[in-house]
Amino acid sequence: MRVEIINTGTELLLGHVTNTHLGFLAQSLFGLGLRVERQVTVPDGVAIAEALEQAISRAELVIVTGGLGPTSDDITREATSEVFGKKLIFHQEILDGIGVKFSKRNFAMNDLQRAQAMVPEGGVVLENANGTAPGLIVENERTVAVLLPGPPNELRPMWEKEALPWLRKRFSTSLGTVHEVSLRVLGLGETKVQILLEDKVKALGPIEVGYCARPGEMDLRLIAADEKLVQQAGALARKTLGDTIYAEGSETMEQAVVRIARAAGKTIATAESCTGGLVASRITNVSGSSEMFRYGWVTYANEAKTAELGVPVELLDKHGAVSAEVAQAMAEGALQRSGADLAVAVTGIAGPTGGTVEKPVGLVYFGLAVKNKTTQVLQKNLSTQREVFKYMASQVALDLVRLAVR
Amino acid sequence: MRVEIINTGTELLLGHVTNTHLGFLAQSLFGLGLRVERQVTVPDGVAIAEALEQAISRAELVIVTGGLGPTSDDITREATSEVFGKKLIFHQEILDGIGVKFSKRNFAMNDLQRAQAMVPEGGVVLENANGTAPGLIVENERTVAVLLPGPPNELRPMWEKEALPWLRKRFSTSLGTVHEVSLRVLGLGETKVQILLEDKVKALGPIEVGYCARPGEMDLRLIAADEKLVQQAGALARKTLGDTIYAEGSETMEQAVVRIARAAGKTIATAESCTGGLVASRITNVSGSSEMFRYGWVTYANEAKTAELGVPVELLDKHGAVSAEVAQAMAEGALQRSGADLAVAVTGIAGPTGGTVEKPVGLVYFGLAVKNKTTQVLQKNLSTQREVFKYMASQVALDLVRLAVR
Repeated sequence: MRVEIINTGTELLLGHVTNTHLGFLAQSLFGLGLRVERQVTVPDGVAIAEALEQAISRAELVIVTGGLGPTSDDITREATSEVFGKKLIFHQEILDGIGVKFSKRNFAMNDLQRAQAMVPEGGVVLENANGTAPGLIVENERTVAVLLPGPPNELRPMWEKEALPWLRKRFSTSLGTVHEVSLRVLGLGETKVQILLEDKVKALGPIEVGYCARPGEMDLRLIAADEKLVQQAGALARKTLGDTIYAEGSETMEQAVVRIARAAGKTIATAESCTGGLVASRITNVSGSSEMFRYGWVTYANEAKTAELGVPVELLDKHGAVSAEVAQAMAEGALQRSGADLAVAVTGIAGPTGGTVEKPVGLVYFGLAVKNKTTQVLQKNLSTQREVFKYMASQVALDLVRLAVR
Repeated sequence: MRVEIINTGTELLLGHVTNTHLGFLAQSLFGLGLRVERQVTVPDGVAIAEALEQAISRAELVIVTGGLGPTSDDITREATSEVFGKKLIFHQEILDGIGVKFSKRNFAMNDLQRAQAMVPEGGVVLENANGTAPGLIVENERTVAVLLPGPPNELRPMWEKEALPWLRKRFSTSLGTVHEVSLRVLGLGETKVQILLEDKVKALGPIEVGYCARPGEMDLRLIAADEKLVQQAGALARKTLGDTIYAEGSETMEQAVVRIARAAGKTIATAESCTGGLVASRITNVSGSSEMFRYGWVTYANEAKTAELGVPVELLDKHGAVSAEVAQAMAEGALQRSGADLAVAVTGIAGPTGGTVEKPVGLVYFGLAVKNKTTQVLQKNLSTQREVFKYMASQVALDLVRLAVR
């Protein structure tokens, strides 16, 4: 069964609004065993009919977002009626329902609202709990079109409470299942992962292997109709990639760190120079992090490293702030000052200025101090733009915590 | 001149990744007087060639993102070569360049990298400053296709430094001009701004007024072909909106804060609880921030507030960590400990848990301590999702610094 999505809206094509409908609908459809084969964005206006005509010639399910409002540029309803050859019929009970919503908000009705009470002949009306424009389902012998309103706070509940149950019933016999294992990998490039794994995984059976690269990391995607096969492939990947897998599915690095630290009953502290608070900020993005994170320092200046973390001035003079020695002293200072079980320190040169021949932009040292253990120090070179550098360095710091806190 | 965008990537159609390329490219193209007429997302694979074939039959400029990497699912290069009927030719100098990048990072090259050195005959190679896959420009008698790598940190600089200058030159005669003033406003809603301004601005002449709302803030966009008119409208808006305008154009709040503090020769310190380091991290996203930012604390636990910032235990016991008194004490402690000219403190309830009837989720206090001045305290209620709350609170904290540091 082929699925396509048409997003209408001039604001999307001007770059004023980011399309979040595609991601929401795609993830939901995946749960029905359906995959979106194609998505198109068209401006408000005549292009909608053309896009719909093309989509229904290819797909069995077409979802259209936007253009159901009452103003002159909202023409999804008319375009659908035209393409499906179904006359628009006025429904008094829909207009009455809109009237009730208006009076509740003390808004005055006007003639434009009448457009929202028009339904293509034989169409199904989807209740809009958070707005006035109802959704619609229209079908011909080959294709079902689901029309949803553009505002995310109207679209999402309507999809889940109205459209999804209808689709489940309508397509019950033809819905398949798709199974997925998605692994997030730090420190191995996508080609390395492909070389290590793809042939072996594909030898197991008909399975789709996908790669999505990000700076310093990647996602490996294994998809198949056969759940056992996907689990087998996942097990093989986990064995091959080992500790480079920092999370699975949609879990983030910081979520993994907070989850693992809480489960182990461990607390951690952060001592940051070049990441400037990003490690702490990412940890505290996670609800429940206050259980395992209590103290963080952003010692951006050398004096701060000395005053707050007790890094000896001589160490800074001799080795410089960006050095293994200072990373170690920062981590140990943070461990001692905070009383945490574990402290991670980051010091490096984020750039674009401040690099030298011996210490180029991108050079970064990490210190990991653990109670009653020898402090670990790690050096990396992550030369890139400043914010990407900060992200990559925070990722490495969090990964050190993840591996140590288990 | 018609422009279309093709985004390739199975991860987009699975809903794993949100398409941010469209917005970025659309906004940039708008600056050339061009509007995107249609955008399509297709999975990695054969659909790319079909989408490209359709797009080049309609548009004079087609931009394709993604699928230029070295793995088996990266086939944009091949699809373009096929659709344009241009043979792929191996370029040793590209492979050598990739080799240099690999050796800098101590990565070993492998055979898969060779794919990235293939160029459709007569194609223009766009340097990738942040990755290995070069971009490409391929054209026939009717259409120019620009192929860009998928990772945003590779695509964006390549677009700005390589593709855009090339397009400006190539299409110089057919590009229009559009002038824009864009003002970023904190603390006024879009309808308020519209009521204050729109009629007055439109009375000046033919000008497009646009609004883009974000949580707690908005951008006001004034666009016209006549530069003088736009400047006039901008001056009127600046006078009307005053200090609520925190930045103009693409400048961010943190860039404004760092710029103003450096110009004033002032240093600042941060003391964060609920924002968890985000204020410090945003400041240190800006190159040159080390001149004005030296000390930051993330005192997530009460003991940390006492131990690191000298917040009296009695104050915490009596008023609670989320209180005007503690915000003030945090700011004053940070000012004293850091020796900075100014310190900002944030303490609040990020949620989703931890709220009470008296102190609900979203409640947040800000303290602003300035040498030899009375400390200012501000209370806000920013009830929303956790990460949005953190962003909004950091925005208010930075804005306090911006206004105080001038």
